Amino acid sequence: MSTFWSPGVAALTPYVPGEQPRQRMIKLNTNENPYPPSRGVESVLRHFSCEQLRRYPDPESLALRDMLARTYNVTREQVFVGNGSDEVLAFAFRAFFVRDGEALAIPEYTYSFYPVYCQLYGIELQKIALNDRWEVPLEHFPEKGHAGIAFANPNAPTGHAHSRQDIKALLERQRERVVLVDEAYYGFGSESAVPLVEDHPNLLVTGTFSKSRSLAGMRIGFAIGSRELIEGLERIKDSFNSYPIDPLASAVGIAALEDTQHYDECCRAIMETREATAQALKDLDIDVLPSRANFLFVRPTRHPAADVAAQLRAAGILVRHFGTPGLSDWLRISIGTEAEMTALTGALAAMNQTP
Amino acid sequence: MSTFWSPGVAALTPYVPGEQPRQRMIKLNTNENPYPPSRGVESVLRHFSCEQLRRYPDPESLALRDMLARTYNVTREQVFVGNGSDEVLAFAFRAFFVRDGEALAIPEYTYSFYPVYCQLYGIELQKIALNDRWEVPLEHFPEKGHAGIAFANPNAPTGHAHSRQDIKALLERQRERVVLVDEAYYGFGSESAVPLVEDHPNLLVTGTFSKSRSLAGMRIGFAIGSRELIEGLERIKDSFNSYPIDPLASAVGIAALEDTQHYDECCRAIMETREATAQALKDLDIDVLPSRANFLFVRPTRHPAADVAAQLRAAGILVRHFGTPGLSDWLRISIGTEAEMTALTGALAAMNQTP
Repeated sequence: MSTFWSPGVAALTPYVPGEQPRQRMIKLNTNENPYPPSRGVESVLRHFSCEQLRRYPDPESLALRDMLARTYNVTREQVFVGNGSDEVLAFAFRAFFVRDGEALAIPEYTYSFYPVYCQLYGIELQKIALNDRWEVPLEHFPEKGHAGIAFANPNAPTGHAHSRQDIKALLERQRERVVLVDEAYYGFGSESAVPLVEDHPNLLVTGTFSKSRSLAGMRIGFAIGSRELIEGLERIKDSFNSYPIDPLASAVGIAALEDTQHYDECCRAIMETREATAQALKDLDIDVLPSRANFLFVRPTRHPAADVAAQLRAAGILVRHFGTPGLSDWLRISIGTEAEMTALTGALAAMNQTP
Repeated sequence: MSTFWSPGVAALTPYVPGEQPRQRMIKLNTNENPYPPSRGVESVLRHFSCEQLRRYPDPESLALRDMLARTYNVTREQVFVGNGSDEVLAFAFRAFFVRDGEALAIPEYTYSFYPVYCQLYGIELQKIALNDRWEVPLEHFPEKGHAGIAFANPNAPTGHAHSRQDIKALLERQRERVVLVDEAYYGFGSESAVPLVEDHPNLLVTGTFSKSRSLAGMRIGFAIGSRELIEGLERIKDSFNSYPIDPLASAVGIAALEDTQHYDECCRAIMETREATAQALKDLDIDVLPSRANFLFVRPTRHPAADVAAQLRAAGILVRHFGTPGLSDWLRISIGTEAEMTALTGALAAMNQTP
């Protein structure tokens, strides 16, 4: 720590992203897509006019927002874009949840960046325990006196998703504060809450190009909500950084959105592989939660989860083990290609042979 | 305004970036470089492996930081990178200047984003008047009881730069708090304070690829300082967004740094054009401040500055007129190509013919 830091900086516990190994490994630890992005992305890079890079980008990112608006059947004014959904979430927490004496309600287990934003902004947290099926109990969220509600749907690291009808029922009871539904893992069998935005001015749905669109590297996230929520996000963004989206990211994002066939094929393949992997893991006496995401949350029964993660690592396979109390018996395993998942189940089967 | 916004969001006055016109104009309003980036940038885009984009970037941006460290003769641990120097500045203000009951000292006229960050973070401001030569009077900065000091060198919109010796003298008196020297406009004849970083753990120097490296579109900024200051920045960044730099930005930035010849040629051409333009403007009875940046700060004497800006605009030339009290007699004119500046002086000469 340093005397030059603002008070509180030393007490921050920053988010720790999943490891990006330098050597070649089967990487099932950060929920990346095993398939490459649309070929349209390559075409963008090959034909992009570099001369354009000497100019500042469009601070409003209109082209990308228009394409997102068409894709999600909303208007441009209902769309916000940022440098990955992490930045969009950071702006949203600042814009809506900083309220003295009120706590933000989030599930006890969810995306672990949420508590980090709360630390950064001094937002109090109220953690809502998951139910015994590891689902977010929407009926347990407070309705008054809170700073807002934020949860991922599908939730991470569990993979459970509520139906749009469930979210609608929640919104009927939530009128005072913003309800943030983080759909980072949309695309793998869950329903989107975006159609509810029209009737619920306090609903903000966030999304990302990192998972279903194979563009984790490109850093494109977005939010869809009422004009007043989007304006709130814009006020924070424009007080922070006018141009978080460069013209390459914009063009690449548009190309990815245009290629609906590639999107559909990749998502379908991942869902099929997920279901096959779930069955294979169960056959190995591993508990598996139902998942609507591109990962499985599993509990080995024959060996401690930490040992399984370490042995998989030794075998060249990275999965995510959270040290978090309450989660330490579990592993989160991203869905890779069929071949990668066969390697995984093979390594686990071998482990079952040893005491 | 919206009841869903956090208190204070409605009161923010976001930064307003310079206009990016949709139609073709001579654009001398946002201090972009008139020359294209290094050819190495094009090569990066043409050969980049798109498959890589499905993976998250290196959260530590080691490759780009290593190249910056080599360029500036410091170590990797003394370098921080972010999504444009705006984001780097936003992190720095949060990391170092949020101090209850203490005010941040900045020049009265300087980069207009500084007061916006202060609003966002609730940082009190103490504005130091420029001297009668429109220079930042370093000797007027407080030495005790303040939250820190931030200024641009060369300063914007004036163009004046202090020597490294001047900055060193300031640092000898400043030990308690961070001194942030924003070198966005370095490269056009000023001295960098980077060599002072070694002996002054409270000095943070920020820079950007937007001006001298012709990459305003790519959003790459950086900071150089002691390890403890860089760690402070990392703590904020990792509490906000793990991956602000995508692998394309990293590769493009490295290519630009490698091409020192292109950098030298562009900077030299801009300096030559600047001096020729300054003389031509003086010949037209326009007051011109000496500049070490890629712009000139000028005061028309025959017509009001706002009228001159409007007439130039009608002639297809954009310059920046700030409505700010105290600056309304002045225009900030970016240095374009020789041909663009000839068009500018031609248009101004024509204006002088009219009453």
